[in-house]
Amino acid sequence: MNDISPKENDILEAARNRFAHYGFSKVTMEEIAQDVGMGKASLYYYFPTKEDLFKAVINKEQNLFAGEIEKLFYRKITAENKLRNYVKKRLEYFHELVNLSTLNVNTLVDIKLMFKELFEDFEQKELDLIQRILDEGKKNGEFDLKMHRDTTKIFLHLLQGLRLRIIKFIKDNRMEKENYDELKEEMSGFVEIFIKGIRV
Amino acid sequence: MNDISPKENDILEAARNRFAHYGFSKVTMEEIAQDVGMGKASLYYYFPTKEDLFKAVINKEQNLFAGEIEKLFYRKITAENKLRNYVKKRLEYFHELVNLSTLNVNTLVDIKLMFKELFEDFEQKELDLIQRILDEGKKNGEFDLKMHRDTTKIFLHLLQGLRLRIIKFIKDNRMEKENYDELKEEMSGFVEIFIKGIRV
Repeated sequence: MNDISPKENDILEAARNRFAHYGFSKVTMEEIAQDVGMGKASLYYYFPTKEDLFKAVINKEQNLFAGEIEKLFYRKITAENKLRNYVKKRLEYFHELVNLSTLNVNTLVDIKLMFKELFEDFEQKELDLIQRILDEGKKNGEFDLKMHRDTTKIFLHLLQGLRLRIIKFIKDNRMEKENYDELKEEMSGFVEIFIKGIRV
Repeated sequence: MNDISPKENDILEAARNRFAHYGFSKVTMEEIAQDVGMGKASLYYYFPTKEDLFKAVINKEQNLFAGEIEKLFYRKITAENKLRNYVKKRLEYFHELVNLSTLNVNTLVDIKLMFKELFEDFEQKELDLIQRILDEGKKNGEFDLKMHRDTTKIFLHLLQGLRLRIIKFIKDNRMEKENYDELKEEMSGFVEIFIKGIRV
């Protein structure tokens, strides 16, 4: 999925917008085909099922997020700031997923099962990215990590936990601004405490 | 519910054991009455409905937990150690609630609605207890809290989040030892990072 043709990219864009507006179940392949000005048969050539298309949309979003984090590694900023950036961008990506209704409370279990693998791979990717930031900070002399692997997992799980708490407030794929702002504040408070907690 | 007669206490004990073994829905008032050797009518005198009885059981557990934390305030230990103790005892209390099936994934929404008030009051109580520990640490010169109220809330929400993550692994009111051990390790790693993160 890393090499996407312009046509495929158009499809993914159109699909993303449809799913974000109407939710997975209400969107038809017909509509998406129309959006990109192609026949239904041609669309099925690229994506045999709606699930495949949705998976590709999510996969693209995941890659975009991971790509943004990868870019951080080329910047001359402290590991601390990379960690802050990670939390900020991860929240934005969460917001995007909420819009894509992957986190809709009603469909959460179904979709999570359907895309279990996709989410598990992504969790591994997240662990790797966080680990890289922490390793960098350790090498730089910024971070003191007694139990290294665990710190990475704890950080990931704390972030996941804060988001999980908020999911119950999500209705119709929309997160209230109030909840988003609360989460944003908690995340930034959390990351500051965490950074200080692992600082040399 | 703070002044409980010995008879009431017997009922609560029996009910707690029944609920823990069979789950809320499978237990009848008849069975509980039999366990304590009283007529069903007498039981209804104390608790007009099974929901009332269940609420009283949960309330008792909440008070036991809060009581254990209150006791910490009379001990000559650092605020740091109080926070460690808080996390440890809170995890044990969570385990107890899992056994009482209040967190059964299938009934979670129902029971949470049924006992919404009970859980909200308890959340406020938890905020107060954590705040007290943090305040003590601030007064002692142990903790540096820039945004005081927020630190309390972030701490509570991080704990809630770590537990929420684990709830999805709970089946039939039983938490696998493996999951419990993982949670325990995460909690203790978390609390150490957090303490260092707020230390002067």
